[in-house]
Amino acid sequence: MAKKQQTAIAPLRADDYPEWYQQVIKASDLAEKSPVRGCMVIKPWGYALWENIMRGMDDMFKATGVRNAYFPLFIPLGFLEKEAEHVEGFAKECAVVTHHRLEKSSDGGLVPAGPLTEPLVVRPTSETIIGDSFAKWVSSYRDLPILINQWANVVRWEMRTRIFLRTSEFLWQEGHTAHATREEAVERTQMMLDVYADFAEDFLAMPVIRGRKTASERFPGAVDTLCIEAMMQDRKALQAGTSHFLGQNFAIASGIRFQNDQEQEEHAWTTSWGSSTRLIGGLIMTHSDDNGLVLPPRVASAHVVLMPIIRRAEERDRVMTYTENLAAHLRRQYYYRRPVQVEIDARDIGGARGWEWIKKGIPVRVEIGPKDIDKDAVFVGRRDREARERESIPTDEFVSGITDLLDEIQHNLYQRALDFREANTVSLEAREAFCRYFTPRNAAKPEIHGGFAQAPWCGEAACEAQVKEDLNVTIRCIPLDASQEDRHCVYCGQPGRYRAVFAKAY
Amino acid sequence: MAKKQQTAIAPLRADDYPEWYQQVIKASDLAEKSPVRGCMVIKPWGYALWENIMRGMDDMFKATGVRNAYFPLFIPLGFLEKEAEHVEGFAKECAVVTHHRLEKSSDGGLVPAGPLTEPLVVRPTSETIIGDSFAKWVSSYRDLPILINQWANVVRWEMRTRIFLRTSEFLWQEGHTAHATREEAVERTQMMLDVYADFAEDFLAMPVIRGRKTASERFPGAVDTLCIEAMMQDRKALQAGTSHFLGQNFAIASGIRFQNDQEQEEHAWTTSWGSSTRLIGGLIMTHSDDNGLVLPPRVASAHVVLMPIIRRAEERDRVMTYTENLAAHLRRQYYYRRPVQVEIDARDIGGARGWEWIKKGIPVRVEIGPKDIDKDAVFVGRRDREARERESIPTDEFVSGITDLLDEIQHNLYQRALDFREANTVSLEAREAFCRYFTPRNAAKPEIHGGFAQAPWCGEAACEAQVKEDLNVTIRCIPLDASQEDRHCVYCGQPGRYRAVFAKAY
Repeated sequence: MAKKQQTAIAPLRADDYPEWYQQVIKASDLAEKSPVRGCMVIKPWGYALWENIMRGMDDMFKATGVRNAYFPLFIPLGFLEKEAEHVEGFAKECAVVTHHRLEKSSDGGLVPAGPLTEPLVVRPTSETIIGDSFAKWVSSYRDLPILINQWANVVRWEMRTRIFLRTSEFLWQEGHTAHATREEAVERTQMMLDVYADFAEDFLAMPVIRGRKTASERFPGAVDTLCIEAMMQDRKALQAGTSHFLGQNFAIASGIRFQNDQEQEEHAWTTSWGSSTRLIGGLIMTHSDDNGLVLPPRVASAHVVLMPIIRRAEERDRVMTYTENLAAHLRRQYYYRRPVQVEIDARDIGGARGWEWIKKGIPVRVEIGPKDIDKDAVFVGRRDREARERESIPTDEFVSGITDLLDEIQHNLYQRALDFREANTVSLEAREAFCRYFTPRNAAKPEIHGGFAQAPWCGEAACEAQVKEDLNVTIRCIPLDASQEDRHCVYCGQPGRYRAVFAKAY
Repeated sequence: MAKKQQTAIAPLRADDYPEWYQQVIKASDLAEKSPVRGCMVIKPWGYALWENIMRGMDDMFKATGVRNAYFPLFIPLGFLEKEAEHVEGFAKECAVVTHHRLEKSSDGGLVPAGPLTEPLVVRPTSETIIGDSFAKWVSSYRDLPILINQWANVVRWEMRTRIFLRTSEFLWQEGHTAHATREEAVERTQMMLDVYADFAEDFLAMPVIRGRKTASERFPGAVDTLCIEAMMQDRKALQAGTSHFLGQNFAIASGIRFQNDQEQEEHAWTTSWGSSTRLIGGLIMTHSDDNGLVLPPRVASAHVVLMPIIRRAEERDRVMTYTENLAAHLRRQYYYRRPVQVEIDARDIGGARGWEWIKKGIPVRVEIGPKDIDKDAVFVGRRDREARERESIPTDEFVSGITDLLDEIQHNLYQRALDFREANTVSLEAREAFCRYFTPRNAAKPEIHGGFAQAPWCGEAACEAQVKEDLNVTIRCIPLDASQEDRHCVYCGQPGRYRAVFAKAY
């Protein structure tokens, strides 16, 4: 029973996690590097996943009154400079457009020509350009709130890139809202964090901790940054979405002013919140295994693959007809407002076929041969179980039970991830234990360490910086549901003010 | 009966069409200019329209086997240079990224820093960068066809811009396919043109002519460019979508090679096809009137606005409850796979409210007052009829008939546009009549002229150029269904080879 399984991905997760990650992406055909430094090509199997993420999240945004819009890709340099902390935070990673045409040089090659009077920055985020519109749209409290989202590409010139996790160009949504009162903006910041958390847990089957960033980890220009943090299978943390309360900082920078109901002029209170194709990286590292990608059904690029088994030419018609009928029946079922997505793979490539779909992470694999058809049954494999563990199910039962089956897989993935996080989270109060927890157990595999530590923290930036320098560990967040702290800071011994989550992070 | 109507838009279409167009956009709140030269802000009412266009078209693409993907925003200069005609066509309008960060200058301001070794062009179209991926993806005829689409932003640095029609940044889709044979690629080029034509007619209610561009109007690098052309209400033509057969030009430039089934190496045959936010400009100019925007129901940002009429405070609860119930009933109906989209506008701003929705082009307006409720009826106005022409309809009947009503409006808009085009299209054979047809009837309004002329053309680029220089008239296309021509060229008198559609154009 316990004999060693063959695995489809090399190296194993346990042996070289970063390389395993790249190999899972390659084997599943989600995406690949492009010839443009740090930019990725999202291939159809990966983009379908992103489409499902967009659709699910967009519905949730709209249910809270948010509407989509679109703002320019380019930001005039002068706009970025309006908020001092903001520009400081992004200046080092901006792609800058300086010319608007190409000209033949003396050696016949093309060179940039038509210099711009004011350089344009390719948006790294859009607070300043959207703030300029908001300033025009708002004059009275009756114009508020403004609740806007945009789905867009952004560019941050990263020096070290990794597909989905950190790329120079990535796809994201950025929400921007303006409110008449501080309270309303704070409430919206929290509401959108909850949307992210619910989406991550319900759609991506990725359990998250909702928390607040420390001052040093805040979005440049924000008063308060809330975040969701998830644990990957190497026990490192991934920040999967952030929601910022911007106070009046950007409203002052952009001139978003309104007359309140007492006819006095005030600056609006704004928020912004974003999540990106990084979620795909999080999904991969939460669920995938040594056989490749594992897709949660609610966002899966497809749900079911049908693999007809045709050993003799004279069986072809019968098997294909049965397969196509089955596909038609499955597609008539709905799973969370999408028709069940069915792929038919009739290639004659032997066992490689099933393994390809395992590597691609499709939730359900179905083999259909003449003997199955004889008994009106199908032979079903599930991606949340061992590759070889398959069972024969009467076809009617399979069709009528497909949405329950998908739900069960979705739930199993979530539960497994939650169990993993809980098994790798500790509460610590002693500095020695804290240091030991984050020390690699095997010098050859520095990425493997304890996991998440919940521990008291003094609240001082200097202490936080020391932890980072000494252990490469950061405060991921102060959980929103954390209790008041009355013990001593786990690292410096000063009175503890917060119970923080410490971890190594992406 | 024929007394002069008040209109909501000034100037009238007949008095100043270009300014009328800008005013329709402003009054309907679709979009506005941005502080970035030539770039637009698409506001929520406009973006909802674009979302519906994307959804409708995307479904049609997918039904033909196309899948979405995403490729980098940036194109290395060297890639663009690979296809000589292509780079020639786009060099004059490229935004060029030359630096990857910002640095404080001696006067404290920010200046571009970190010069790139090779400048990057912000994609004006993606043949070359996508071709690079295709070259990696294809090695055998078994890997073909590749059928890819991407929804993306592109930048073409235009000197004279107009919202939706010609902007420096616009949103679009670009399809790219690679095939093993010339025949298959030609067939795909035609198939996607048909998708565009069907979409324009069925969704946008915009009748189009399917045709072929002359050599001088081809996409840079294409062997053949097919297009759909529509007539705007100023009788000018708008090119609303193009589908290009690229032969092997780009496959050679990008190295897309494959082994055919005889184990010989060949270059693939490629196509590309695109349509953009320009479609919104076409929609506006096809249907809108002197009261503002008119939205075809199948893509409308919303279908129905409910306007409760509350004259006394004690009526509020009853009227609002009735209104909300009605909204709930309407939203349970589906119109082309979307739930009927209902807005409730309970603002107490008198007659301005109804006019606002007329200007925004919503297909159906419903007023609900206590007297209507007494007889369980609603007071309904349709955007395809006069603003003042409204009728009382029993509420049950209105709800159960809503999708028929929307369909009727959709059909009426299409028929009206088709009638207009037919009334403003002539067949001409004499040069004198041809010149007169395109001469403005009123020197003060040079944009008003005849319309479309179908006429014989010799096929010579020099003749085509002369027509353009003399009359500012271009050959929009050679209609795909045009009969063989045996008369003399309408302009130069040489033997006519084609029956072409001539028009002034956007």
